[in-house]
Amino acid sequence: MTLHPVLVAGRWRAADASSEFRARDPRTGDAVGDTYPTSRWSDVDEALDAAAAAARALRAASPDVVADFLEGYADRIEARAGEICALAGQETALPTETRLAGIELPRTTGQLRKAAAAARAGDWAQATIDTAAGIRSVLEPIGPVVVFGPNNFPLAFGSASGGDFAAAVAAGNPVIAKAHPLHPGTTRLLAEEAHSAAESAGLPPGAVQLLYDVDHAEGERLVADPRVGAVAFTGSRSGGLALKRAADAAGTPIYLELGAVNPTFVLPGALAERGAAIAGELAGSCLLGTGQFCTNPGLVLTVAGDRAEALVEGVADAFRSAPAGTLFSGSGRDGLARAVAALRTAGAESVVGGGPEDGTHAVHQNTLLRVDGAAFLERHAALQEEAFGNAMLVVVAADEDELVRSASLLEASLTGCIVSAHDGGDDALYGRVQAELRPRVGRLLDDKMPTGVAVSPAMHHGGPFPAAGHPGFTAVGVPGALRRFAGLACYDNVRPHRLPPLLADANPRGAWRSVDGEYTKDPIASDTLETNR
Amino acid sequence: MTLHPVLVAGRWRAADASSEFRARDPRTGDAVGDTYPTSRWSDVDEALDAAAAAARALRAASPDVVADFLEGYADRIEARAGEICALAGQETALPTETRLAGIELPRTTGQLRKAAAAARAGDWAQATIDTAAGIRSVLEPIGPVVVFGPNNFPLAFGSASGGDFAAAVAAGNPVIAKAHPLHPGTTRLLAEEAHSAAESAGLPPGAVQLLYDVDHAEGERLVADPRVGAVAFTGSRSGGLALKRAADAAGTPIYLELGAVNPTFVLPGALAERGAAIAGELAGSCLLGTGQFCTNPGLVLTVAGDRAEALVEGVADAFRSAPAGTLFSGSGRDGLARAVAALRTAGAESVVGGGPEDGTHAVHQNTLLRVDGAAFLERHAALQEEAFGNAMLVVVAADEDELVRSASLLEASLTGCIVSAHDGGDDALYGRVQAELRPRVGRLLDDKMPTGVAVSPAMHHGGPFPAAGHPGFTAVGVPGALRRFAGLACYDNVRPHRLPPLLADANPRGAWRSVDGEYTKDPIASDTLETNR
Repeated sequence: MTLHPVLVAGRWRAADASSEFRARDPRTGDAVGDTYPTSRWSDVDEALDAAAAAARALRAASPDVVADFLEGYADRIEARAGEICALAGQETALPTETRLAGIELPRTTGQLRKAAAAARAGDWAQATIDTAAGIRSVLEPIGPVVVFGPNNFPLAFGSASGGDFAAAVAAGNPVIAKAHPLHPGTTRLLAEEAHSAAESAGLPPGAVQLLYDVDHAEGERLVADPRVGAVAFTGSRSGGLALKRAADAAGTPIYLELGAVNPTFVLPGALAERGAAIAGELAGSCLLGTGQFCTNPGLVLTVAGDRAEALVEGVADAFRSAPAGTLFSGSGRDGLARAVAALRTAGAESVVGGGPEDGTHAVHQNTLLRVDGAAFLERHAALQEEAFGNAMLVVVAADEDELVRSASLLEASLTGCIVSAHDGGDDALYGRVQAELRPRVGRLLDDKMPTGVAVSPAMHHGGPFPAAGHPGFTAVGVPGALRRFAGLACYDNVRPHRLPPLLADANPRGAWRSVDGEYTKDPIASDTLETNR
Repeated sequence: MTLHPVLVAGRWRAADASSEFRARDPRTGDAVGDTYPTSRWSDVDEALDAAAAAARALRAASPDVVADFLEGYADRIEARAGEICALAGQETALPTETRLAGIELPRTTGQLRKAAAAARAGDWAQATIDTAAGIRSVLEPIGPVVVFGPNNFPLAFGSASGGDFAAAVAAGNPVIAKAHPLHPGTTRLLAEEAHSAAESAGLPPGAVQLLYDVDHAEGERLVADPRVGAVAFTGSRSGGLALKRAADAAGTPIYLELGAVNPTFVLPGALAERGAAIAGELAGSCLLGTGQFCTNPGLVLTVAGDRAEALVEGVADAFRSAPAGTLFSGSGRDGLARAVAALRTAGAESVVGGGPEDGTHAVHQNTLLRVDGAAFLERHAALQEEAFGNAMLVVVAADEDELVRSASLLEASLTGCIVSAHDGGDDALYGRVQAELRPRVGRLLDDKMPTGVAVSPAMHHGGPFPAAGHPGFTAVGVPGALRRFAGLACYDNVRPHRLPPLLADANPRGAWRSVDGEYTKDPIASDTLETNR
């Protein structure tokens, strides 16, 4: 079997490989598909040079070229959808039809098209004009972006196809995609289409590049390289923090999305109103995709009583009756088992499941744990370890005060939910919990499970460190996600014919701009200029 | 002489001092004024606790309270202007009337009032609403901000009065100000007024705190403390990078403004048109404030020829005829002398000056150095060392290609200027230089010296690392500067009565918001909601 080439400097060419690897079918553990290279530094170095050249060319290119690429790429993904989803299903064990073809692929092409529209419109760049002072500023591309994709969304967060990719390109940057080694074939198919679309649209060579794998040391060297403009990483805390150390030392912005336990509070009034329904929602959200979501509700907090017991029992019933899904890998199962064991060591009791499923490669029992609030207050750090997969820990606080104190000890998360009574009976407690929870999470939800992450301009998929790398930026949502991959560029007294189009008086794109403190899509009238200059 | 108390937890109280210090008159080197403490950790720890409590209280406070404080503080500074400027003049040797009272104090109060207006208006927080999805997001306070002020603007960048302070407070955060030890008395007077204004406005205790000094290790411990939301530092590269390492390890956003050489290109056509005037502008900009500006034009690049020689001679004449100003300190003079010596070691020749002025405490000769382009290409790193003060290095490139290659080797700077012919004769070369310079600087200027930093919404006082800490944020300009001190907070399906005012349908502040992709100050009409929900 031949070793697949890497996509570097505008062509598919043989890798300088230090080793080779194949994907494994998570259902069996058997190696499947083709063989892929782990690249040595020479591949990385050539990709960095090509990306630097592409960044320069892209700065001079029209956003329409970039948008054409993103749209053409979305079309090509749809044309090859069957093959892509089939291979992704084999590599990840995600349901090919219901999840990959039904949800994730449309999300992926939708993101690419929204990013294209954002590039064409130009609103994302926040053009700001002070006509009296003759000063204008706008966000401009930051330079080559290295994207590390996660294991859990091979398409929608894929390094060469997902939200980070789309946002980085739409902002005018080349991308060096580092594939996740659990789905190299899926990434290859996507990158093939990206490359073809890039050639069709006339993007510079090096605008889209793919390396299947680099070892950890080379990855750190990559993100610290001065040719890199920014880094986007979605994945485990340990991996992300190692890259952050390297990027920070070089002063390179790195945007992390590291997952979280996503605390969900179920208040007493809500339990009284609709406890059974809430149990069903919690179980459904936690088991969706075998729990392998960054926003999985892994930690549920409620107040002791019969209704809390009924809630636990309701979730337990659902966990018992639902078949345990297949995780992405045996190592993922081992990681989940270790986390569950650690939670038990810290005092959590097993209600359902608690360990790997015998006779399988990557199946862990649906696992429900519980602990009382006093134990949580005492060992809150250990009891907030993320168990990535189909596992949930319920904290049963003795009373409302203990619930609020528990909230005050939460680490940063991407999301936090509060489920409260519709009749307003929980509102006082809601206020106390919210005051603790709000500053600790990126997205606060009422009465809604966190696992849906809408691609909305108002979405925030991020949060305080260490859930994310910087609390001001979202990884999902257009145009917000684009702003991560830009630097502010100010033009002071620059002659009109030299201004970039987004800052020109005529506003040729009709972009939203802040002109003298007011937002408008209008061009700047010549009388304004005469008055103010 | 008694040791001045620190401002911690809402009161002036005796410091837990590890040592004491006094300011020195830069003209004589003699200790002047009162005695101030270097605080031990217990002071810092109490300030952090108080700041955390204040952050919680401020989250629930109206922006009007914050704005009242900022405006009241500005009024109080003006009422005590004479005393403040006199003491600042003594501690810094800056001209009391022309610089401090005439320029810096009005800039300071103007910034405070602009920040107040921004807090009242709420536009800064970029409220974004997706009515169909029921998702809303807005920037919210990041938590306690530690501000390290620089030596060179005791009022306008002062830790308890300047742009970082105003922006952090206007965004709803408490500030722990760490005074610059060269002007502790000035900072004390300002903090006294800040404290009184805070009490009058009803800010929580701990919203404004002042420590005069901490040693380096405690400073690093401070910025890494989990109670800190963000850090702002303006000053030397070595000090800033040490704090950055500590803050990065804790995942705390740190915004740096570290100065730069601020390359200024003078193109041949401009020299032909107005060489003598340009020489005068360069000399004036470089000697202003004895060159102690972050945006001082320390590196000038031009193309060889008679007119380049005339430019050098014109600057030289101005440098010879202008009296050498007094720097902020003897150590500042020593640092400048070391930098000038290093530039000479790297191949620069002295045209004027070159060393300290004998018989003074803090005067360095106005110093003009030159080097040819070939040497710059060879030793570009050494020749870009910042010489903070009244010194300039002119690079005389052999030809246009060498000028462009020199531009391609520039490190990041806050500003970059290109002075070109009005008749368009330099436009081709401008394009080549601009392509290199633009991505390397935060603010690009045409035909204008960089030392004026207007407090404009379109200003960018920042740039790529290591001129600044993150390329997307400005340290000067309202409302942009506020956004550094905020995190994105998303509300997903949150009930209307629980939304913060900036996200409520009624839009009670009339803030600019992005609603379903369009900017508007209007409330959200109920029919929109009925249609979309």
